[in-house]
Amino acid sequence: MSKRIYLNAFDMNCVGHQSPGLWSHPEDQSERYNDLGYWVELAKLLEKGKFDGLFLADVLGVYDVYNGSRDSAVEQAVQVPANDPLLLVSAMAHATKHLGFGITYSLTYEQPYMLARRFSTLDHLTDGRVAWNIVSSYLDSAAKNLGLKQQIEHDDRYEIAEEFLDVCYKLWEESWEDDAVLRDKEKKVFANPKKVHDINHKGKYFEVPGAHLCEPSPQRTPVLYQAGASSRGRAFAAKHAECVFTAGPTAEIVKKGVKDLREKAKEQGRSPEDLLVFTVFTPIVGRTEEEAYQKYETLKSYISYDGALSLLSGWTGIDFSQYEPDQTLEYIESNAIQSAVEVFTKADPNKKWTIRELATFVGIGGRGPVIVGSAEQIADEIEYWVNEADVDGFNIAYTLAPGSFEDFVELVVPILQDRGLVQKEYQEGTYREKLFGSGKNRLTNGQVGLTVQG
Amino acid sequence: MSKRIYLNAFDMNCVGHQSPGLWSHPEDQSERYNDLGYWVELAKLLEKGKFDGLFLADVLGVYDVYNGSRDSAVEQAVQVPANDPLLLVSAMAHATKHLGFGITYSLTYEQPYMLARRFSTLDHLTDGRVAWNIVSSYLDSAAKNLGLKQQIEHDDRYEIAEEFLDVCYKLWEESWEDDAVLRDKEKKVFANPKKVHDINHKGKYFEVPGAHLCEPSPQRTPVLYQAGASSRGRAFAAKHAECVFTAGPTAEIVKKGVKDLREKAKEQGRSPEDLLVFTVFTPIVGRTEEEAYQKYETLKSYISYDGALSLLSGWTGIDFSQYEPDQTLEYIESNAIQSAVEVFTKADPNKKWTIRELATFVGIGGRGPVIVGSAEQIADEIEYWVNEADVDGFNIAYTLAPGSFEDFVELVVPILQDRGLVQKEYQEGTYREKLFGSGKNRLTNGQVGLTVQG
Repeated sequence: MSKRIYLNAFDMNCVGHQSPGLWSHPEDQSERYNDLGYWVELAKLLEKGKFDGLFLADVLGVYDVYNGSRDSAVEQAVQVPANDPLLLVSAMAHATKHLGFGITYSLTYEQPYMLARRFSTLDHLTDGRVAWNIVSSYLDSAAKNLGLKQQIEHDDRYEIAEEFLDVCYKLWEESWEDDAVLRDKEKKVFANPKKVHDINHKGKYFEVPGAHLCEPSPQRTPVLYQAGASSRGRAFAAKHAECVFTAGPTAEIVKKGVKDLREKAKEQGRSPEDLLVFTVFTPIVGRTEEEAYQKYETLKSYISYDGALSLLSGWTGIDFSQYEPDQTLEYIESNAIQSAVEVFTKADPNKKWTIRELATFVGIGGRGPVIVGSAEQIADEIEYWVNEADVDGFNIAYTLAPGSFEDFVELVVPILQDRGLVQKEYQEGTYREKLFGSGKNRLTNGQVGLTVQG
Repeated sequence: MSKRIYLNAFDMNCVGHQSPGLWSHPEDQSERYNDLGYWVELAKLLEKGKFDGLFLADVLGVYDVYNGSRDSAVEQAVQVPANDPLLLVSAMAHATKHLGFGITYSLTYEQPYMLARRFSTLDHLTDGRVAWNIVSSYLDSAAKNLGLKQQIEHDDRYEIAEEFLDVCYKLWEESWEDDAVLRDKEKKVFANPKKVHDINHKGKYFEVPGAHLCEPSPQRTPVLYQAGASSRGRAFAAKHAECVFTAGPTAEIVKKGVKDLREKAKEQGRSPEDLLVFTVFTPIVGRTEEEAYQKYETLKSYISYDGALSLLSGWTGIDFSQYEPDQTLEYIESNAIQSAVEVFTKADPNKKWTIRELATFVGIGGRGPVIVGSAEQIADEIEYWVNEADVDGFNIAYTLAPGSFEDFVELVVPILQDRGLVQKEYQEGTYREKLFGSGKNRLTNGQVGLTVQG
């Protein structure tokens, strides 16, 4: 195996996650998101395909910038309704043995004492297969409903996040010593209280004097994901994250971000191999190239224009309803827009992008690349991205659920396995060991031991 | 069937829930609480025994009054470690079809917008089998770790709880109309945005302008449990709860509380049959009476004196470490103590209770009665309690898990079924319909339609 590639399925506890409108395709089953059987089947499928993990996104607000209203988002189920992702995990964990679960969870509206308990519980119940995708929320529509007048300023959010993590590290890593819990029925001692410590945290934002409510879980700290794209976000990721989730339309664009991230991690004294970078990737696979392109054309016909722009308007903060579908971007005299959509239009900088083309781009696969082709071609492109962009793995997004994943497992995974690029069998151990190697069960970001002084 | 009796198993995501020390008994498996298989097996067992529900308690702090420290609680695993109960549900729900899940969840440290989403998610995933046991937290040790200097005053807690529930009702019952979600693939309309409403809540404690993040779940509002024992708590329960969980050592004592509760509910204009009262009950069953008493003697030998007093001190706020084990209560000149433990000593008012006897009483079954006998005798006692105390059901506590539940399912349930007192088959429908009758799927406490004005 040259460079091992890691695979996550990218999903969310909602309908039609990254492809507004495609829920209406006859084959799409994502509207079954309320059905546990749907998730259990998905988890089993991914484990059959030797996926490393299932990565679940989350949002706590609705996209209400487009037309100044949430109506299009509601009509097209654009990440609304959006159910809690944590509550899916135990059913899927019980039906699988190796699949990891990366759960997006905002720290903005939660106390670290509570969040630490939730993830410790899941880490126990999954036998150490849980990851936390650390998010500080960005939607005003969420903030308003959660007791804040508006979003906390961006940089403050990271300052709060730093302290939040500090509290979590103390609870997870330092409060209960490794040999605190004895379970000694003979001596009638469950745990040695001398080895359970108060963390005595007193900071700017949080006060947590006590001990963690949970005994040490298999990984203690869950594997930490982060997805910050801003400069401050990348610095945060370089310090804390063990896995980083990035997105961009071309390998060349993603490459720059990855390079910067790896440099920042190095500045933090971290080894390059202790940071895995994932990028989003939407494959449209056919048994032949022709079949794949036919599929793609059909899929495009299901994109909801309003739904796609609802998503794009929410992401950029710009209300795209003010433009005509056939208006080209170059005639819109707004630098704000040009730069806001640059991340998409860079996919083809020579093209004269219309609003409709932008909607179509966003409408399948969001920010990331859509790769259409035979299984061989998809595998080629994956190899190309790994080499060109220096990423370690992919969050594979679906156009149709679970069909896209079925195709990928059936057609692409065997080719990647034959090329020695992805695993044929799971490694034993926790999620962290599966990602970073046997014996590497403790936090790899260098934060262990830094947190509790004296 | 004369009066149908409802059965819950009473448990918590921890070791040795209500019986400090008994975790060390060779047959007890409650230390497997981190193992999903343990919970899935339990859920299947309860469904086999046609239990109505599994009721999960929770605490967010540790018992640290005894000896002014948490050491005894940690050593004897007295409800610490304590993992999150919500995260157990989906695995158990996927392995069962009818069992209800009553989950204790404190509103003190959570925003209603988030909590409403968690319960809607679970109500979807369980096909309408979830109940919320509404708790406002009471332990200082929890408050301190969650950003509060100390507990909020008792009556303020209920005022906050009132408004919290008001917000939840609006989100659950009024935000999405019944026919808002169409899932119409032909017309490409997932939901009709005109039928999704902002709740515009602006109160003393919460501001929640927006709409609920989740589409209507099978029950919308989960079945509401409450367990308030104070006068204010009972008033709250009489207004909001559909099921009330009470506890007391004798049927005569429980009777008074039930009577008061039913009167208060009537004052609120509620029908008596819309409120089910459960009481805690710890059976120790043998194939003969003699075998049961032998079992009881053995179990008593596993009680942890320090563990039991740790629990009792936490509950009463009185540090019982200052007394000698053989000191009798009548020689302790403190009215505070006499009245704090009255609820226990009333079980046998003529006895000269020592501290050790009090510990033994608490050490098996907590506040409730421990009933020792053959299966017939247990069934007789259950009938007696229903008739004497006017309760509708029982939270059956274990001494050994899952052994106590195995005994109960194998030996007691068939007798209760033969007598026509408990169900032989589950009724179809949601948890609320199973409890209150077919077609009674909406909130029975009269709060629907009161919440959003105009």
